[in-house]
Amino acid sequence: MTIPAATASFHGIWPALLTPLKPDLGIDHHRFGLHARHLLHTKGCGGVVPFGTTGEGPSFSVAERRDAVDALIGEGVPAAQILVQTGCAALPDTLALTRHALAVGAHGCLMLPPFFLKHVSDQGVIDAYRQVIDGAADERLRLYLYHIPQVSGVGLSRKVIETLKGLYPQTVVGLKDSGGDTAHTLAMADAFMETLTVYTGHEPDLPELARRGSTGAISGLANFLPHVVQRLAGKPDAPSTPHDLSRVQLLLALLGGHALTPALKGIMAALTGEPGWLRVRAPLVGLSLDQMHTLQHQLKPLALDLDTD
Amino acid sequence: MTIPAATASFHGIWPALLTPLKPDLGIDHHRFGLHARHLLHTKGCGGVVPFGTTGEGPSFSVAERRDAVDALIGEGVPAAQILVQTGCAALPDTLALTRHALAVGAHGCLMLPPFFLKHVSDQGVIDAYRQVIDGAADERLRLYLYHIPQVSGVGLSRKVIETLKGLYPQTVVGLKDSGGDTAHTLAMADAFMETLTVYTGHEPDLPELARRGSTGAISGLANFLPHVVQRLAGKPDAPSTPHDLSRVQLLLALLGGHALTPALKGIMAALTGEPGWLRVRAPLVGLSLDQMHTLQHQLKPLALDLDTD
Repeated sequence: MTIPAATASFHGIWPALLTPLKPDLGIDHHRFGLHARHLLHTKGCGGVVPFGTTGEGPSFSVAERRDAVDALIGEGVPAAQILVQTGCAALPDTLALTRHALAVGAHGCLMLPPFFLKHVSDQGVIDAYRQVIDGAADERLRLYLYHIPQVSGVGLSRKVIETLKGLYPQTVVGLKDSGGDTAHTLAMADAFMETLTVYTGHEPDLPELARRGSTGAISGLANFLPHVVQRLAGKPDAPSTPHDLSRVQLLLALLGGHALTPALKGIMAALTGEPGWLRVRAPLVGLSLDQMHTLQHQLKPLALDLDTD
Repeated sequence: MTIPAATASFHGIWPALLTPLKPDLGIDHHRFGLHARHLLHTKGCGGVVPFGTTGEGPSFSVAERRDAVDALIGEGVPAAQILVQTGCAALPDTLALTRHALAVGAHGCLMLPPFFLKHVSDQGVIDAYRQVIDGAADERLRLYLYHIPQVSGVGLSRKVIETLKGLYPQTVVGLKDSGGDTAHTLAMADAFMETLTVYTGHEPDLPELARRGSTGAISGLANFLPHVVQRLAGKPDAPSTPHDLSRVQLLLALLGGHALTPALKGIMAALTGEPGWLRVRAPLVGLSLDQMHTLQHQLKPLALDLDTD
């Protein structure tokens, strides 16, 4: 019997967590926990997603990623509200992180395909996911496929998604489409929403995707705009939608002039008054204080506010 | 005082080792050692390069890569004849592998930049290399920068190379340009050959690069054609060059219809009669026996032979 995707996959807004760093560029576990708890308890997010693209996931070692998930739980974030991005270039690493997510009782795993080699075949991508799913061999695994070809260089074709869903109907519960191509995302929704939940990583597409049955979002902007994202995803036909949409579009247009994660961390630094948020792992370059102030100035018309959203 | 690159960087042919796998897809250490020793002792190669792109390096975990380098040494390959590709997506992993290569006395490290994020800035790539070099803090480190943008998605600009050479004149001894763009490779040679050795990963460019002062090659084809590669790199103006060049070009044209590493492993399997060579890590897909036989048939006019080269 197939569990309907809607009962297995997540609901609500699950921010793609930015990863706060200490001066030595190790992960600041305490601030990570504070940030996640704030989003869950104060802002009403459904869960959190560490180590996605926004969270610089592949810039951290397996041990760092495992330790930080443990630390989130230690800081009071319920494991069932953590969806861990476990994809790595090396499948043994992806499997190790997936097993760890299962062992701690995480909600599930968001998973990049191996991303070093390019122009790989559908069969190769299918083999990669199969080896991790079969290696984990755990019926509790909830897997969200992660399509972000402009970064990973390895997209997930319709055939890959169909094949994996057919092979593992109870495991493959969702698809995160972060390609930023609206037509593609809507086509994926039309093709798959009845069997697995399609989520978009591109916030302006949230209302349209919600109308097609998506139940929430994994969102980078939700690090500091969770309520706006929540309305777009949860109440797509509310009177507030046009205003929220234009705010999000203006924000993304402003951010378009920057590398995304450094700019999102710059906003966090500006909103919290904690310049430690500016730190990033190379090959990213963090904003300087001056650049942060410039960005802050540019964002003024948006009246961002961590407390009121 | 700057050590002239020519005294610090390697000479001769250093095959970019294919990585033999066991049925469980773990690395076959014994066969790996046999293959490397054959190339060094029987074929006269100068050294070997494990875990480059041809060797599926990023498909293996840090522990697998470290263990396999230890095993090569245990199998009798002199550490000083091993140039380890240590680049990973996560800098702590790159640093761990670089420290290990130093600890075992390897000749040096070939190093990919972090390759998950794309459109990163020169400064970010420079920061990444700096953090590894400064983290290793070992004057024995010989670093070869690795430019293969069509795979890694992160190229090394002239500014990146110049800056790193300027900062670490004794550490940065070479550049491997595997971009396959002849004009780019020759421009790199003209710009840098006096301060660091430029090697090409594209065998047809070897004679031209040798004329410009390159002292050898890291070559995928050298897994089974080391003598041909050696002549092209070492005696660019020999009477044999046109024949060798046309052979290599025909071979590359035939391989062009396949994913490169599976096809190279297919040739190894055919030449050695050991079908275990066909195994690859996903997201690659190994050739089937039928495909291997077809490739073998296509290659017949080339009269490849492991023993006579």
